[in-house]
Amino acid sequence: MLVVKKFGGTSVGSPERVKHVANLIKRSVQSGNKVVVVVSAMGDSTDHLVSLAGQITNNPSPREMDVLLSTGEQVSIALMVMALNEIGIDAISFTGWQANIKTTCVHEKARVLSIDPKLLLNALDEGKVPVIAGFQGVAEDNSITTLGRGGSDTTAVAVAAAIKADLCEIYTDVKGVFTTDPRVVKEARQIMTVTYDEMMELALLGAKVLHPRSVELAKHYGVVLKVLSSFDDCPGTEVREVTDMENRNVVTGIAFDEDVAKVGIIKVPDRPGIAYKIFGSLAEENINVDVIVQSISPDTNFTEMAFTLSLKDLHKALKILEVVSKEIGAQGVVYDDKVAKVSIVGAGMGDRPGVAATMFKALADVNINLQMVSTSEIKISCIIAREDVKKAVKAVHDAFNLDKEGFSCG
Amino acid sequence: MLVVKKFGGTSVGSPERVKHVANLIKRSVQSGNKVVVVVSAMGDSTDHLVSLAGQITNNPSPREMDVLLSTGEQVSIALMVMALNEIGIDAISFTGWQANIKTTCVHEKARVLSIDPKLLLNALDEGKVPVIAGFQGVAEDNSITTLGRGGSDTTAVAVAAAIKADLCEIYTDVKGVFTTDPRVVKEARQIMTVTYDEMMELALLGAKVLHPRSVELAKHYGVVLKVLSSFDDCPGTEVREVTDMENRNVVTGIAFDEDVAKVGIIKVPDRPGIAYKIFGSLAEENINVDVIVQSISPDTNFTEMAFTLSLKDLHKALKILEVVSKEIGAQGVVYDDKVAKVSIVGAGMGDRPGVAATMFKALADVNINLQMVSTSEIKISCIIAREDVKKAVKAVHDAFNLDKEGFSCG
Repeated sequence: MLVVKKFGGTSVGSPERVKHVANLIKRSVQSGNKVVVVVSAMGDSTDHLVSLAGQITNNPSPREMDVLLSTGEQVSIALMVMALNEIGIDAISFTGWQANIKTTCVHEKARVLSIDPKLLLNALDEGKVPVIAGFQGVAEDNSITTLGRGGSDTTAVAVAAAIKADLCEIYTDVKGVFTTDPRVVKEARQIMTVTYDEMMELALLGAKVLHPRSVELAKHYGVVLKVLSSFDDCPGTEVREVTDMENRNVVTGIAFDEDVAKVGIIKVPDRPGIAYKIFGSLAEENINVDVIVQSISPDTNFTEMAFTLSLKDLHKALKILEVVSKEIGAQGVVYDDKVAKVSIVGAGMGDRPGVAATMFKALADVNINLQMVSTSEIKISCIIAREDVKKAVKAVHDAFNLDKEGFSCG
Repeated sequence: MLVVKKFGGTSVGSPERVKHVANLIKRSVQSGNKVVVVVSAMGDSTDHLVSLAGQITNNPSPREMDVLLSTGEQVSIALMVMALNEIGIDAISFTGWQANIKTTCVHEKARVLSIDPKLLLNALDEGKVPVIAGFQGVAEDNSITTLGRGGSDTTAVAVAAAIKADLCEIYTDVKGVFTTDPRVVKEARQIMTVTYDEMMELALLGAKVLHPRSVELAKHYGVVLKVLSSFDDCPGTEVREVTDMENRNVVTGIAFDEDVAKVGIIKVPDRPGIAYKIFGSLAEENINVDVIVQSISPDTNFTEMAFTLSLKDLHKALKILEVVSKEIGAQGVVYDDKVAKVSIVGAGMGDRPGVAATMFKALADVNINLQMVSTSEIKISCIIAREDVKKAVKAVHDAFNLDKEGFSCG
């Protein structure tokens, strides 16, 4: 099997960890796999580099930040090859430019344009394990770029797509994807398989699992992903298109997000172009809105607009909306910064009736009031008071019998 | 003036130091110079990287050591550009491969083959200060190489040669080249100008001054060097071919070396090929010998061979010589590991009589016995007891009135 193995910062956080990971790789090679490795920067080395830059300037050049930060992964690849050599595995390191990982020239958030598979396949043919620096690439002008958040995952998926790998394993410090956050619901169980769409929705279950961007890329190229721990010998969670239609989960997992604020615009004159006016002005300032609900006012000439956004954007959004609200002749802007979002995710819920009702009943039974509801083919999200989040997640987890799904390891 | 400025590890040892150096560069740019900067890794960052590798293996792949160590200078170039930008100077960083510094593919001790001046000159034309990572380059197979000891000095000189700079300034933590080590002779004075040959001989005055290899390269390409301090505002020492023949120094400075052992082979049969046999067998084991003296024995069928070498090689050399000595039928091997070498250096001494006599008298006056003497066009070296070194250097410094030469700064 041709497999890409990606190891995150905590997995290679110390020389000891690097040696441990080298042994994981060795085992895979010895069992007959062809292995390509992608590594992140060691533990807190990126923080150290960011702090150095911070001691020089508050406004560093993005081009030079990329030059600076890309050294972190470069250290990791060298050490990983040394550790592999030390236990008798032939290996060779590749920086982003050496692996010919071409990206756009947008520093600090470049996107991968292409990866030349030849160099990597040649190394494999020579019996070597290629060890590639994650998170980095090279732009057309030969400058070093980095891929922004989740960058190393993206590198791994892009490499897997380029060399047509059978599997892309993402090693982290969690055992896989769970039905919900085990810190909140102790009955949470690990999930064996999720679809790409479910995984994207579940991404908020914990920042340490896959970045949505890499999942999107994996979906696009049909790369089978596996999330697993480099600390435990557990089977992990596979992310793939489920081909067995009947076997799709009704509810796979429960995501929640406490970084939510709710904004309402009251008595909005109901005419075309109003929504564009409101959301266009927010988009111009790079403010993302999430759940949007437009409801009918008793007075049919008006409508009510409500939506959620990230707490950190609230202050900036309110300033913009005060102005917009006057321009469009609305009555005013109200907000609530003490809300949260609880979502059930499942690729099969679209054709099973009663799923929403089950969720609403579970919440009602524990006296939780729904403030907003939003649905998609694979997700139902409810906005509730933030203080009720844990109670809500637990109740919904029980209602869908998720403590009896999945498996538990270690 | 087109000038290359190279800053060593202590000069960029902290974010504060990087900012200080950025100000030095700014001053030079504002006074109308076109400036190209070469930087080393920050302070002890290389030691940190070496220690990481040491925690993984005792026998790291040289290719991967180069990948690892080259990150040190990459961090420096990014921070230096940030610091320059912060004070309003436009700048752009170049790693070794980005500056197209082509080297041989001998990892950990590569030699520079070529530097493409176009990229650097283009940046200068755009009003930018190019900031280049010292010590590193790229081999034909696209692997990262490092230049070994004195590598950043070599980068600076090679860049200066490639862009035909008017001057290559090497900033260190010493004020320049002195008539001898000021820690030993407090009357030591700074030298205004030395020739390339003198500089190579004086290199042993202190490892922190120029590496002989970069001086050799500067001589070859006629690059005018200046050694100066980034900590003091002092004029430094210029290294160049002295064109004014009459003005050459008789004695420019006094070098000494305490890392010396003396070996003698007694009663060597005097026939052709014997010297080759002895020194060839040492060379095969990479042992350098320095001063060699062959003296005539009372018995004309035999000769005495004596030479000096580095203390660290003594044990290995003795083992080899025991064998060789038997093979050639010599009587035996003796050694003294308590000697040192004191040398006077001056480009003008070749055509001034009495220089050697003055040195010998100065040593005799303080009761120092000469064990071996070796001379060249620009140098006279005496091997003496190690315990007498300071006394010897002081006496010779006085004898040539070096306390009245040169200048003193700060």
